[in-house]
Amino acid sequence: MRSIQQHVGLVLFPSMGNTFGSVFRVTTWGESHGPAQGAVIDGCPAGLAIDEIDIRAQLDRDVPDKELGTPRGETNRFQILSGIFAGKTLGTPISIVVWNNDTLPDSYSGTRDTLRPGHADFTYLARYGHTDWRGGSRASGRECIARLAAGAVARKLASRHGVRFEGRLIELAGIVIGDDESFLRARDRALEIGEGGDSSGGVVELSVYGVPAGVGSPVFDKLQAALGRAFFSIGGVKGVEFGLGFEAARVRGSGSNDPFCFDADGRISTVGNRCGGLLGGISTGGTMTMRLAVKPTPTIQLPQKTVNVAARREMIMEYWGRFDRNYAPRVVPIAEAMSACVLADHLLLSGIVHPTRSDSA
Amino acid sequence: MRSIQQHVGLVLFPSMGNTFGSVFRVTTWGESHGPAQGAVIDGCPAGLAIDEIDIRAQLDRDVPDKELGTPRGETNRFQILSGIFAGKTLGTPISIVVWNNDTLPDSYSGTRDTLRPGHADFTYLARYGHTDWRGGSRASGRECIARLAAGAVARKLASRHGVRFEGRLIELAGIVIGDDESFLRARDRALEIGEGGDSSGGVVELSVYGVPAGVGSPVFDKLQAALGRAFFSIGGVKGVEFGLGFEAARVRGSGSNDPFCFDADGRISTVGNRCGGLLGGISTGGTMTMRLAVKPTPTIQLPQKTVNVAARREMIMEYWGRFDRNYAPRVVPIAEAMSACVLADHLLLSGIVHPTRSDSA
Amino acid sequence: MRSIQQHVGLVLFPSMGNTFGSVFRVTTWGESHGPAQGAVIDGCPAGLAIDEIDIRAQLDRDVPDKELGTPRGETNRFQILSGIFAGKTLGTPISIVVWNNDTLPDSYSGTRDTLRPGHADFTYLARYGHTDWRGGSRASGRECIARLAAGAVARKLASRHGVRFEGRLIELAGIVIGDDESFLRARDRALEIGEGGDSSGGVVELSVYGVPAGVGSPVFDKLQAALGRAFFSIGGVKGVEFGLGFEAARVRGSGSNDPFCFDADGRISTVGNRCGGLLGGISTGGTMTMRLAVKPTPTIQLPQKTVNVAARREMIMEYWGRFDRNYAPRVVPIAEAMSACVLADHLLLSGIVHPTRSDSA
Amino acid sequence: MRSIQQHVGLVLFPSMGNTFGSVFRVTTWGESHGPAQGAVIDGCPAGLAIDEIDIRAQLDRDVPDKELGTPRGETNRFQILSGIFAGKTLGTPISIVVWNNDTLPDSYSGTRDTLRPGHADFTYLARYGHTDWRGGSRASGRECIARLAAGAVARKLASRHGVRFEGRLIELAGIVIGDDESFLRARDRALEIGEGGDSSGGVVELSVYGVPAGVGSPVFDKLQAALGRAFFSIGGVKGVEFGLGFEAARVRGSGSNDPFCFDADGRISTVGNRCGGLLGGISTGGTMTMRLAVKPTPTIQLPQKTVNVAARREMIMEYWGRFDRNYAPRVVPIAEAMSACVLADHLLLSGIVHPTRSDSA
Repeated sequence: MRSIQQHVGLVLFPSMGNTFGSVFRVTTWGESHGPAQGAVIDGCPAGLAIDEIDIRAQLDRDVPDKELGTPRGETNRFQILSGIFAGKTLGTPISIVVWNNDTLPDSYSGTRDTLRPGHADFTYLARYGHTDWRGGSRASGRECIARLAAGAVARKLASRHGVRFEGRLIELAGIVIGDDESFLRARDRALEIGEGGDSSGGVVELSVYGVPAGVGSPVFDKLQAALGRAFFSIGGVKGVEFGLGFEAARVRGSGSNDPFCFDADGRISTVGNRCGGLLGGISTGGTMTMRLAVKPTPTIQLPQKTVNVAARREMIMEYWGRFDRNYAPRVVPIAEAMSACVLADHLLLSGIVHPTRSDSA
Repeated sequence: MRSIQQHVGLVLFPSMGNTFGSVFRVTTWGESHGPAQGAVIDGCPAGLAIDEIDIRAQLDRDVPDKELGTPRGETNRFQILSGIFAGKTLGTPISIVVWNNDTLPDSYSGTRDTLRPGHADFTYLARYGHTDWRGGSRASGRECIARLAAGAVARKLASRHGVRFEGRLIELAGIVIGDDESFLRARDRALEIGEGGDSSGGVVELSVYGVPAGVGSPVFDKLQAALGRAFFSIGGVKGVEFGLGFEAARVRGSGSNDPFCFDADGRISTVGNRCGGLLGGISTGGTMTMRLAVKPTPTIQLPQKTVNVAARREMIMEYWGRFDRNYAPRVVPIAEAMSACVLADHLLLSGIVHPTRSDSA
Repeated sequence: MRSIQQHVGLVLFPSMGNTFGSVFRVTTWGESHGPAQGAVIDGCPAGLAIDEIDIRAQLDRDVPDKELGTPRGETNRFQILSGIFAGKTLGTPISIVVWNNDTLPDSYSGTRDTLRPGHADFTYLARYGHTDWRGGSRASGRECIARLAAGAVARKLASRHGVRFEGRLIELAGIVIGDDESFLRARDRALEIGEGGDSSGGVVELSVYGVPAGVGSPVFDKLQAALGRAFFSIGGVKGVEFGLGFEAARVRGSGSNDPFCFDADGRISTVGNRCGGLLGGISTGGTMTMRLAVKPTPTIQLPQKTVNVAARREMIMEYWGRFDRNYAPRVVPIAEAMSACVLADHLLLSGIVHPTRSDSA
Repeated sequence: MRSIQQHVGLVLFPSMGNTFGSVFRVTTWGESHGPAQGAVIDGCPAGLAIDEIDIRAQLDRDVPDKELGTPRGETNRFQILSGIFAGKTLGTPISIVVWNNDTLPDSYSGTRDTLRPGHADFTYLARYGHTDWRGGSRASGRECIARLAAGAVARKLASRHGVRFEGRLIELAGIVIGDDESFLRARDRALEIGEGGDSSGGVVELSVYGVPAGVGSPVFDKLQAALGRAFFSIGGVKGVEFGLGFEAARVRGSGSNDPFCFDADGRISTVGNRCGGLLGGISTGGTMTMRLAVKPTPTIQLPQKTVNVAARREMIMEYWGRFDRNYAPRVVPIAEAMSACVLADHLLLSGIVHPTRSDSA
């Protein structure tokens, strides 16, 4: 690989960045075509009831739509190797391993020196020098299965305080989704584009319900800052909005501010929710709303111009293997999982979740 | 304040979140109407030439447009209290204090129990219980002066490797800015809205030039994740995009991927830059491009419905004091400063900047 | 378990603390009698040659002395699940799982409500409320097998710069060890004490060779601060010294300072090494020397006064199961492993190790 | 400075390490002979009553003994620049500046190229390349004044839960201190050694009273690990012990274990406290006891062999300026301050301190 690296011409250096969170801390590991993916969750309080069904339910949400999503046939067999005993968390790190069983590393050997456009092959090479050319390594969508596992634990913790996460597609392949009919139309469009060897993207909307007022840690750990980081860490996400989002740039203050009032229970609340449940980086108690733009899957079956790094020549790449026709539906549960990890962390930092006390009540 | 806090009804807990970065670490402090704002920069390599003019130049960029921006008349007198000796960094923490000299805390006493819509008064109260009601405390735009100071150091470090930051307004008060004429038209529109007692927002575009390929630390510290966090930590930012941004959701893979080629110097490069200089969370070597949506200033001079927390009653709030008619122009240098801090951090993490070696060369 | 927890009477809260290091970051997980122990190493540079033999060699160092050490018969079967490909690190997290195969969880069921003196049963209960009563959970010596695995990677990295770790027993069961004969005498003493159902401790000395001058990050990450934290995180360690250690409190400045000189290669060096290779928290380039005091194994076969938490009564505990007669020999490789992790981290932070560059040279 | 750096022959790199703590986070800054020292405390809960007198009281504890300690005449004038409003913490970062007013930077100019034995001149040069040669920079005892300020806040927080810190000298200049008479004898000995131009050290014992059972976060943030790091970050500390300390290596398990019992209030407690209030890295509820060995002040008035780095020659250094005859008494309040910071952090992490709730009760 020396020649490649010399070509890239960079001094290489340690990577980190596989741990997320301040108090509820998630570390993930695993290459796309290695033996397994995994998550270690440190900082989950002791005494939280959790079992394999909770995790199974989230893992099963990966690729619900076999036609649109990856044809890779993972069963996502997993094991909880630590941190849970007799149905409850111990306060010690929770280690979950999800075994890979449908890897086809050999299918990549023909293209190992070819940089796939839109993928991270080139940048991983530039960053690390030595790379796993079998699929996307850590840049693959496969990496997110570990996030779903961690998110399952986070959801359980958040749900103890009534916090609930709900994502949905609001746009697919350029078609706005408003109802079932428009969804089917959009899905057909995405499939049709896929039939033609091309791919498409979409927009995911996420609502977080039940977050009490007062969660978030200004200034650099404002809730939207933590969520923004979380969402932009998901492969293929190119835009993130909260509340009015980019539209906020076009309205007036009088059309952007949410007046305050007392709600039926006498609690301070906002009339409307243009702010998306966030003011000054702290939750208002209203529903948190956000949107993520997902780019089209970079793998397509059309000829693309690229380079072969070993041969050091430009070339036309053609690919006929399996690919996600549209990756956006897979981002829905991942966005939920990441927001659950953020909320679990910030609920703890804000002193709001004390599960054991509730457990023993 | 007991009654307020009981009303809010939350268990209060430690805040943190005022430190940013992994290796190049910035900590800021200061309330809007306290005696000073400050930044401590830890992790800046020793031997970097820096002087007061570098910092002065960035501080002076706050509120270049007195009509649009804050009428608060700060001179931004500052002192470097540590970390720099004989014109060069020592490798020890750099402490910079910017003194506040135009505080009008008394002007807020009439409204101390009134929650200003669109501001963080309520959420700070919910989070902290005990708050500084004189202006926006840490949620004020004033807080960002410390970021400009830290950014000045980060820019200096980044510039050692040829990395350069350039922000600009591309939309103001709903008018797209393409040239000087459209800028003047947009500015007039923003002033006119301000005359009417209302406020407006805008969109900031930021280009980062000269970042070598291979910077960024997947998966949770992908470069766009770190930048996303940085931008969403700026008050009033409601949306962030990289490259095609939300438009990426609407194109096809063939219209989103950037083909690879060799550039004139024989280096791998992309044809086009739809990805915004980022693939898999790592820089491609191309120009990094991003956009931030800034909401209208929440302070306006129109009557607004809100509540008085002490009296526990709903009311109409009227305000006739000073306010930023449009805050978006002030976000330009702040977005540059934050991206400079991110890049300084990630250039170091990627092993690319060794200023002392260059200094002594 | 509710009653126990109520008795202990504490508000319970998140734990973290299973990650170690700033740039070379080690996270460990696993309960003593769960299915496995594991380590995730994030931040190891790409391109470092490492194979299973390197890890095997360190795991095999646990309990070299079956008579003195644990009779638990672990084979320490392990798997590398990520981060290494084609014999070299990828720069992605390295996940290593060591399977437990000689757990006897049932052997603990008779004593699950009895607090073992000198063990962490009580404090874990106070901290977490819900505990794994099968053996010592994370407080068991078994936890350290994951540290040996992580240490194997760290040693490999450190050795790239010529840094070498060598621990030895200098005191066992109260007998100072100077040569083989005194070692055998001390070992006999420890065995004899063990025959009587009691246990003994010892002192471990550790030398780190080859650390270049200039490693360490004052003030809170001084090298001895990072090492001190690392050593005190090992179960049973009650004292740590560097260089002259406690003796330094009794000599004069003239007997504590090491004069400077030029060595044969013209490099600045110290005459003597009373400082233990550390000044101001930074390495001098001399051999780093430190000592750790290890308390006797708390498990003994003598009757001990304690309490049953379920029955809420005082009682005499008698135990006839297996136990480490002297745990100090097992601390030798663990102390080496922990110091290797510290040095790997600080060599990287000090910009000294760039393995890929050397690899490709 | 190029030649020096070339001589030292190291690649230089970012430093960090000036932040301490996970949730209660202290950042310090300031060079010995710069304009000021400072601390920024992030993560202190809102609503904690604190005023300038609390901080004044701790700053005044530096150098109570003018004969033994530094003759430097600091008045330690300080300002609280943020984070406290109307007598209570805001939950925002607390910035405290302590101005230096008795710097004599010129007194060092004659020796700027001479490495002082036992000092950090050489290692700072090796680490940073560019250094502040005026006194010890960040390696000076002066740095600790910022720790005393931070410790004042931490003590206040800890005291809300009844946690109290008490340090004392138990050995000075080689003489064990048991009572007032032996203290005077030891002090005379230290002064006498000082008269002869030499210096001496001592041992500090620290008791922390009132820590509830259940504080600490295994495995790497065991309470003794955090305290060990904290103590070894203090200049001149060469050894740290908890409970029996090194003596634990010499006794048997039966002489090291503390039996459990119920105390008068029905709470689980230990009979005796050989463990020093810590088991498995978590507090037992008993008094925490620890000891720190402090080396003699490296500055002495006897001729010492050293090198001049500019001239690259060996030489005899003679110094007739001011120096601490014995630095150990100054370590007493610093050790208290550091342990207060550790306990504040870990009490918060363990969910035990909720000052606002108590405040409003």
